[in-house]
Amino acid sequence: MGTEFLSIKDPAEVKKLINNLPIKRKTEKVPVKDAYQRVLVEDVYSQINLPPFNRASMDGYAVIAEDTFIASEEKPVKLKLVEIVKAGTIPKKKMESGECIEVATGAPMPSNATGLAMIEFTERKNDEIYIYEATPPGQYIAKEGTDLKKDEIILSKGKLLTSDKIGVLSAAGIKEVTVYFKPRIAVISTGNELIGPDERMEYGKIYDINSETISNSVRSCGCLPIKAGITKDNYSDLSAKINEYLDADLIITSGGTSAGTGDVLRQVLDDMGEVFVHGIGVKPGKPAIVGKIQDKIIFGLPGYPVSAFIVFNVFVAPFLRKMAAVPNIQKNDVLELKISRRYHSSKGREQYVLVQIEDDLAHPIMKDSGAIKALADADGYFKIPKNVEIVDEGSMIKVESFSQLAP
Amino acid sequence: MGTEFLSIKDPAEVKKLINNLPIKRKTEKVPVKDAYQRVLVEDVYSQINLPPFNRASMDGYAVIAEDTFIASEEKPVKLKLVEIVKAGTIPKKKMESGECIEVATGAPMPSNATGLAMIEFTERKNDEIYIYEATPPGQYIAKEGTDLKKDEIILSKGKLLTSDKIGVLSAAGIKEVTVYFKPRIAVISTGNELIGPDERMEYGKIYDINSETISNSVRSCGCLPIKAGITKDNYSDLSAKINEYLDADLIITSGGTSAGTGDVLRQVLDDMGEVFVHGIGVKPGKPAIVGKIQDKIIFGLPGYPVSAFIVFNVFVAPFLRKMAAVPNIQKNDVLELKISRRYHSSKGREQYVLVQIEDDLAHPIMKDSGAIKALADADGYFKIPKNVEIVDEGSMIKVESFSQLAP
Repeated sequence: MGTEFLSIKDPAEVKKLINNLPIKRKTEKVPVKDAYQRVLVEDVYSQINLPPFNRASMDGYAVIAEDTFIASEEKPVKLKLVEIVKAGTIPKKKMESGECIEVATGAPMPSNATGLAMIEFTERKNDEIYIYEATPPGQYIAKEGTDLKKDEIILSKGKLLTSDKIGVLSAAGIKEVTVYFKPRIAVISTGNELIGPDERMEYGKIYDINSETISNSVRSCGCLPIKAGITKDNYSDLSAKINEYLDADLIITSGGTSAGTGDVLRQVLDDMGEVFVHGIGVKPGKPAIVGKIQDKIIFGLPGYPVSAFIVFNVFVAPFLRKMAAVPNIQKNDVLELKISRRYHSSKGREQYVLVQIEDDLAHPIMKDSGAIKALADADGYFKIPKNVEIVDEGSMIKVESFSQLAP
Repeated sequence: MGTEFLSIKDPAEVKKLINNLPIKRKTEKVPVKDAYQRVLVEDVYSQINLPPFNRASMDGYAVIAEDTFIASEEKPVKLKLVEIVKAGTIPKKKMESGECIEVATGAPMPSNATGLAMIEFTERKNDEIYIYEATPPGQYIAKEGTDLKKDEIILSKGKLLTSDKIGVLSAAGIKEVTVYFKPRIAVISTGNELIGPDERMEYGKIYDINSETISNSVRSCGCLPIKAGITKDNYSDLSAKINEYLDADLIITSGGTSAGTGDVLRQVLDDMGEVFVHGIGVKPGKPAIVGKIQDKIIFGLPGYPVSAFIVFNVFVAPFLRKMAAVPNIQKNDVLELKISRRYHSSKGREQYVLVQIEDDLAHPIMKDSGAIKALADADGYFKIPKNVEIVDEGSMIKVESFSQLAP
């Protein structure tokens, strides 16, 4: 009968000790389509210029800007339509002065076009296009590489790949990324009285609850649970089970940690490895154990389901998230933050503005930053009601974070 | 060339319209082990009593309580040890007065035992047990059915099955649950200029970003994305693609929604179905479309990635979560809430208390409620520092929610 008494440690001390346990992170290459919710090991650089060519950003007519400078509502300029370029096709003609080419949003601009006349300010009569407004040089042309340049960094190491970041990688021509391996966590329930969900109920037995609870919680920390099943609460069975799962990255047991009949994890650890903590000054959860065998960390949770769940959430979960390199705080909610600079909104329309969160400030991503760069940098967005035109620097705004960890 | 103008609707009106769209939810039965992150269709009732038998809640000796009433530190009562019962085994003997049976935590109590003497207040000398403290009747016996009674409700319909709730179902002997089917959402990108991640980059083309971004966002709303791929921005290709995916539960397209060359979703919907919204007074995202074909809702997002992502998050995501019946607000963060009643903590130990959140109040789950019932009811927990003994009714506490949606 094990009757050695626990030496109760302070919770803060235990948290510090756990936080200082060594972590070996493994990495793997995965296709971008399988990288959702994974964490980047390295900085990622764009493989291409974005846009990859000078691109029409409106439907309209590519023109030589000078041709249109005298155009007005009263005296339109008449240009000859020589080609129609849809998105995804290549302009074949070079325009001469007096000519224009119809372009769709997203189409490549003809090589010598210097501006784009928006379709709303034109009129077509057969092959003649009437331009009712002067076209400033460069208008509505998204120049090659202005959003992102080839070899420019787009996402930094440590970034959790949320749905928008996956899109950014696709846009930049990235096929594969190096991410952290999901740590494999063996989950063992100990107790002679426990039976699995498919076993027949017998007198004296109870259904095992911790296997399911802890395994799913492990998953929510970005790790992969390995259900190691139930073992009897005796030395030989428990030590055999632990030996069998020493190739996992970490082992969690529940049950068998207090000081009485059949409490054996402590003995197993004393013989096969080392005990760092046996007893934490918390309620519930006092008899929890932290130890290791070889280089494998072992957490021994109490058997009582509420205690096991609390000790897991308070002490184990932060360490698993650290092993998996996922952010410890899941920002799925609305955050109230100060805006870092004054922001002008458009009149008469409700506006949504992307923001990057840094140093507890919400930095609005300015309109002239490219689409892909904006998504690469964004952590969330805030709303400006349609009757508000200016949001002053330092005002509090409600930032809706993009959901991070998700099923 | 489609030049009909959008009739811009107010964002609040569009949200209301979307919220009123009819929803048909399908259901399915799944094994409990596969029910993580799913939502219950029906109330669930316990299949068994919990504990299923009178259970020792400490390591010690089962006694006839009256035998020990005169026990004290100075004058211990001497009892004869007649059996040892480990957890998971069945007591064979009935005790007579003057006898005791050793029981481990979790073991069934012998049928005529009326109390349990904690091992710390006893001493064993061969087969004689010295009891140094009176054992009140019922002490340390968890009576059959005191945690949960057979046929008692344990989880209500609409509950998201987080890891603790899965544990509760296992404990109550539930093998299968009826949950909502994950809605299958077809995701179509339209644009002649778009190429998939495995295609060779050519001049005039860009990589499709919305397929990945929207598909993964769909997943984070508790739905199953079906990647329907890229279609050219013309009437026949887009209508054929939409026809092909009408067996999905909902269709999301991106691109092809503004008023210009090659903008065809509007025409397809006018011919094959109905348009509810074309144009929302938001920036970015103005040209978004909501419509239906037969009984399938179709959301047409703008093609520009930031606009598509914002319109998805603001207008589409809440509807998808509603279809999937998952809670709209993901409570992964710390919530500051008022406590509904005064709570006494233990001296000298940091304490964690489970709470149920209702009407914006944190209701502490009292110590005498059973373990499984407590987990069934709990939404999170809060910490009481070790130097605090009383938390007054109405004090603000920080509730850590159990992570809800997770990978």
